[in-house]
Parts: sequence; C-alpha cells; structure tokens
Amino acid sequence: MPQDEARRRDLSARVEAVFRSYGFVPIDTPALELTEILLGKGGGETDKQIYRFNDNGGRDVSLRFDLTVPFARFAAEHRAELPMPFKRYHIAKVWRGENTQKGRYREFTQCDIDIIGTSSAASDAEILIMMSAALQAAGADVTIHVNHRGLFNRFLTRLGIENKLVEILRAVDKLAKAGRGEVESRLKELAGSENAALILNFIELKGSWNDILRDMTSLAGGEGEDTKRLEDIERFLRDVGDGIVLDPSITRGLDYYTGVVFETFLNGAPEIGSVCSGGRYDNLSSLYTKEAMPGVGGSIGLDRLIAALESLGGGEGGSPYSFCAIACVNEADFGAYQRIASRARQAGISCETCLEPKKLVFQFINAEKKGTRFMLIPEDEHPDEQPESTHVTLRDLSTRQDKRCSLEEAIQTMLRVKNG
Amino acid sequence: MPQDEARRRDLSARVEAVFRSYGFVPIDTPALELTEILLGKGGGETDKQIYRFNDNGGRDVSLRFDLTVPFARFAAEHRAELPMPFKRYHIAKVWRGENTQKGRYREFTQCDIDIIGTSSAASDAEILIMMSAALQAAGADVTIHVNHRGLFNRFLTRLGIENKLVEILRAVDKLAKAGRGEVESRLKELAGSENAALILNFIELKGSWNDILRDMTSLAGGEGEDTKRLEDIERFLRDVGDGIVLDPSITRGLDYYTGVVFETFLNGAPEIGSVCSGGRYDNLSSLYTKEAMPGVGGSIGLDRLIAALESLGGGEGGSPYSFCAIACVNEADFGAYQRIASRARQAGISCETCLEPKKLVFQFINAEKKGTRFMLIPEDEHPDEQPESTHVTLRDLSTRQDKRCSLEEAIQTMLRVKNG
Repeated sequence: MPQDEARRRDLSARVEAVFRSYGFVPIDTPALELTEILLGKGGGETDKQIYRFNDNGGRDVSLRFDLTVPFARFAAEHRAELPMPFKRYHIAKVWRGENTQKGRYREFTQCDIDIIGTSSAASDAEILIMMSAALQAAGADVTIHVNHRGLFNRFLTRLGIENKLVEILRAVDKLAKAGRGEVESRLKELAGSENAALILNFIELKGSWNDILRDMTSLAGGEGEDTKRLEDIERFLRDVGDGIVLDPSITRGLDYYTGVVFETFLNGAPEIGSVCSGGRYDNLSSLYTKEAMPGVGGSIGLDRLIAALESLGGGEGGSPYSFCAIACVNEADFGAYQRIASRARQAGISCETCLEPKKLVFQFINAEKKGTRFMLIPEDEHPDEQPESTHVTLRDLSTRQDKRCSLEEAIQTMLRVKNG
Repeated sequence: MPQDEARRRDLSARVEAVFRSYGFVPIDTPALELTEILLGKGGGETDKQIYRFNDNGGRDVSLRFDLTVPFARFAAEHRAELPMPFKRYHIAKVWRGENTQKGRYREFTQCDIDIIGTSSAASDAEILIMMSAALQAAGADVTIHVNHRGLFNRFLTRLGIENKLVEILRAVDKLAKAGRGEVESRLKELAGSENAALILNFIELKGSWNDILRDMTSLAGGEGEDTKRLEDIERFLRDVGDGIVLDPSITRGLDYYTGVVFETFLNGAPEIGSVCSGGRYDNLSSLYTKEAMPGVGGSIGLDRLIAALESLGGGEGGSPYSFCAIACVNEADFGAYQRIASRARQAGISCETCLEPKKLVFQFINAEKKGTRFMLIPEDEHPDEQPESTHVTLRDLSTRQDKRCSLEEAIQTMLRVKNG
C-alpha cells in the first residue's frame, strides 16, 4: 500500500544519502543467477530458503537470497576495472522461500555495503561507523554488538572442540532468539556439560570494551592478531562511534565470516532481532577467482527495520499524498489549474490537481482522507496568464478555515506551515 | 558498473521527485506472480517474451514483464481501500526473455504512472503533462506524439476492415522502426492496395493539432467522442504542454488500449524509438473485477532513455565517487580522520576516507582515477578534538595545486568549487 511503500522509499533514500556522503558507489547485479553461482559459498542455512527454478532453457537458476554472494561474483569478474579498495553499496530486493515445497516465497529489501581490497582495521571500523550513521539517519536508536571470530575459534581450540566450530557458532548465534536455556542444552549435546558451562561463561562476559577484550584474550590463550584488531577498532571508534559495544555472544550463523562480526539491535526493541549485521570475509570470492580478495561488509534488513520502528510507535511517516490539492471548479479550466499547481511545485510544495468537477464538499472529503493539508480553490472564472495574481480560497483542511487571497499569498502561508 | 548505476539511480530519483510533486504515490507489487494472472490480458506480443518457470511447488509462475498488468491486479484487489481517482507511480525492474528457449532474459527498469478511477480528459492530459515534466527533469529534450484509438477504429470501420483491426494496429505501430515500405506491403497483404493507400494517407496527415484533428474526423466519418476528447486535451495542453503533438500514426501494439495512446521520441534521436509510451485502458482490470475501472497511464523505459541520452553525448553524469577524500597519513589517527570527514559531510561535501597508509602519491593517483576533485591531507600529528581548527593541506587534483589552511577554510574552498 502507498503509505508503506512511501515509507520504505523514504528510509531507503536517507540511508543511500549517507552511503553516498561516505564515497560509497552503487552497483547492481541480476536478480536471477545460476544456482551453482549463488549456492557455491553462501552455505549454511540459506540453502534451504533459496527460491529455485528450472528455466525454459533447462538451466538451474535461482533468485538471489542476499546481495553479498552476487557481489563476490561481480567483484571477481570486474576486479581489474575497479579502483581498490572498492567501496560499494547495493539497495535491492532479495527473495527467500519460506516453504519452497509449496512455492511460497517472500521479497525483502536489503541495503548492503562492502569494502573489498583491504584487510585494514580502518575498513572494519568504517563499516561500523557508516552503518551507525545510516541507522541514525533512518531514525533508529540502536546498539551495534561487535565480536571477532578469531578469539572464539582460539578459545574452542583451547578446549579441544574446534572440530565442532560451525555447529557451536550456530548454537551460540541463537542466544537472542531461542534464549539461554535452549542454547545451553544444545551446547551440552555438542560439547558436554563442562565445555557448555565454559562457553556460556565466555559469551556472557560483561564490562567495558577493554575489560571484555582482556578477559576474552586470556580465555583464548593470550594475545593474537584478533586482540590487536579489536584494540585498533576500539581506538578508532572512541573518536566517532557511539552505541558500538563488544559482545562475545555474537557469532553470526553464516560460515563465510573470518574476522570481525556484528549485529545491531534497537535499544527499545532488542527482542525483534538484528536489523543490521555483517562482518569480515576474507575468502568469499575464492570460488570465482584464485586471488584472495579480502572484504568487510554489512547489511540492513529494511523491512525488519521498518517493522521494528513501527513496533516502537515511531515508524509512521506523514501522508504519502500531496501537501496541497487544487480543486476542480470548472473542468474547462484544467490547463490553468495545472499552471497554478506548477507554481506551487516550483515553490517546493507537492500539489495534486483534482480531475473531476464534483461538488466541492466531496473534493474536500476526498483530500482529507488522504491527509492532504491544504486545498486551493481557484476563484477566477478563467484564471489569467499570470498565475501568481490569480485569486484563490486557501482552505486548511485540518482546521476547516478558509482564507481568500492571491495564489502567491497562499503559497507563502503553506510554506510557513510546511516548514514548521 | 558504478558509473552506470549511479546515473540510473540519479535519473530515477529526479523522475520520482516530479511524480511526488504531482501528488502521485508509490506502490510495489511482487516481481513474481502466477503466470495466469500476468498473461490474462497483457496479450499481444508480450506473450512470447515472458520469463516463465515452474516453481518447487509445481506452480506456473513468471517474472513480471511490465508494471501495468500487476497494477491492474493490485487495483482490483485493493479498490475499496484506495482513494479514487487513485494516482500511483511504480519504479521497478521488469524481465523479458529475449530467447527464452535458451534461458536468456534481460532486466529493465521502468518508471510507470497511472491514474485510475476516472475517465476525464483532465486525467489523460495530466499523464502527458507529468511525463513531459519528468523527462525534462531527466535532461531529455523530447516530443510526445499523441493519438486516439477511437478515430482510427472508426476510420477502419468506414473502410469495412474493422475485423483486421489488431493486425493493422500492429502493422502501423512498426512505422518508426520498420519504415514506410515495409508497413505498406504489410497493409496491402492485410487490406488490399486501395485500403493500404487510404490508411497511409490517414496516418501521414500533417499540420497543426487542430488541422490534423479536423482531417482525421472527416476521414473517420464525422465528430465523435474521440474528437471531443482530443479537443479538450489540446485546450488543456495549450496552457502548459510544450512539445506534445497529434500524430495519427501512433497506434501502440498492445491491445488493451481503448482511447488516447502516446509515444515519445528524443528530438535529437528519434531513430532510437520511443522512450516513454502509454495510453488509456478502460477495461484492463476486467479480468480481476466485474466493476469497470477506467485508467490511463504511461511508462518510461529508463534503460533506453539512458542509452538515448548517451548517444546524444549528454548522458554522462559526473564521477559517482566522492568529491573529496581524506588521505591516510598515520593509520592510528583513523578515528580523527573520520571526524574530519564527518565535518565535510555535514557541510554537504561527499567525503571518502583512505583506509591504508600508502605513499601519498599512490593515494593521489587512486583518487584521481576515480574523478575525486580534492584531497585533504591532515597535517597535525594527532588531530585534536576540534576538527574545524585542524591543519590540512587541500590538494586540488584537477590542477595539482596544494594549499595549507585550516579544515574550515578548506571546506569553504571546496564548497565554492562545488557550487560553481
């Protein structure tokens, strides 16, 4: 419906403006690709949710289920032409089957950013800083929870259960959704009671970024590159990043992440789950190219973000319809009405023209229903060539008060209301 | 590639801003729908170009090949909730198979507008007026060619060949693409030599809008509602519509049009074909609802428009990369660099941060390649908390001249260049 779509487009435009202001550039990739390309490395749980077909030529194709995997393919193909490091964003639809046996699927809009061609700590930090700015621009009050896969891996190796890494990552990943009890039982199954208790202790470390990092490092067997990376990021964020915390329970289910990982929760509604997540993936494009192409990225799930904002009561935008409407008094004057509307549009006021000479009261009711604030009723029988001196009645639909004035005065009045 | 995608997004945003300023609201429909819904009435040539699958649940589904048919379905479903007349736009991808036997298909971006729920001449005129404004905002110098199916139908009825209507419409529709000779032979096959000559005479009428309308009316057997409609539209357009002409050769291949039809050609490159077309369809949603739902709409083919603008040499936008970049002198200061960048972004200057402390000359070369105009080189060892008084060297990459100044002065200099 228009209200929802206007809201989605508005949020997407705000997020995009932030991406552009950071010098990220847009790319696009096809919605449909060969399944073998999309499934090569996406791995993990997404296999089951992919929306997959045979096309008329008998090829096995699928609708993209995320924007990261197609980007890895794109980057491998175009690496020679792209300036490195390359910073891109991609705001587009993805499709996931909810019950593909029955042919059900859903469309989602994702806003992805990635930096490839550098392993620097600065690039990890920039993804976090820009996502924080983009979410703020979208009106979301969030906390970004950061972790590093390396520390967790070293910790499991020390416990001697690194062979269960992927299963344990996925079990821990369910902490926010499934709750502590369920994660604990699953960890006991996977690693025994003693290890389960140690893992829970690790992922539940509390304190400042540096306190937690010190404890994690000690449990992981001492300093490593991962420790240094999290120290660097902390230093960079100290200058600019509010609302970004270290959280050892963040693991991300997908197995292509190799370094920093993060998830983002709304401060007022963490139970809704992560609205923006990502991490570093140093081998993602290895399927498509032999050369290593390190990268780090993140993705905002726009539909979930909108749902979350709405659940907090702050999600509604204004009316998607125009701020002002020109009444149709005499159909023969429609050209002149368009000239009047044009003058309002030039002044920055969105302005609809009514298309049929119905009774004015019906035109008022119709405009009110849409949330239109003002109605302009042309008063001159055949408005002349100078629209600004045309006489109009300006009706404020919120107070139902009328004022007779020139078009120019009406526009000034509307501008004052519009600009608060 | 980023340059193309940035251009597409920019044009799409300009067109959308015009649509919004006229009070049109956005809607979205799913990319995939049941084939029986999409093919019900799209009819004609599009059948062969549809991209069609069997999904995992065994249903026959297709990717939408236009935005009109899904809108008819949407409107029939939601008619009770929509304010009538309802004016919507939809900017989205459509898919057409070029050789679906081999599984080839292509994605296109379309910008569609429609007004449903009114048969008024004002709504026909508004579609033409808004499309003209949108194309102008996109930088396209165009002429919109308008016709009315009714006059052509009456003319064929008078010749006694109305049973060949659809084939003749399609033959005439090929005039711009296939040329006069080919259309003439096809018309001879369909209607005989004498009728072919009469049809060619009809579609090649020349003169002012009113001259052509008078001649068409006479050949069609006298005044009808179609004559009145074209007179009304002419009167409305006289006040606001430049570059909109009456052209009896415009028929549109699709058979759902019932009234006004139009196509749009670039003044500098008519041979590229129509970049925007549409018309009135009074029975389109009859498949989905028993109630009549009159409508009129049009569609800009964004990809063709971009190709056309490029062929005229005016199609290139500026660099999609940022206007300014902050050099990375000392990696440890990345947080401070982000603070500096943030100050520039607040002033409205897009600003990228370099992520690795490479030699400055390499950072300059990299930024130059991207078309970045200015480089900011932080000069203080550890920039302090007040970014505006930080010392920087501002390098103009187009002249390779350096200036040492405060960040604030650098921002003022960049703003002067940016705003011309």
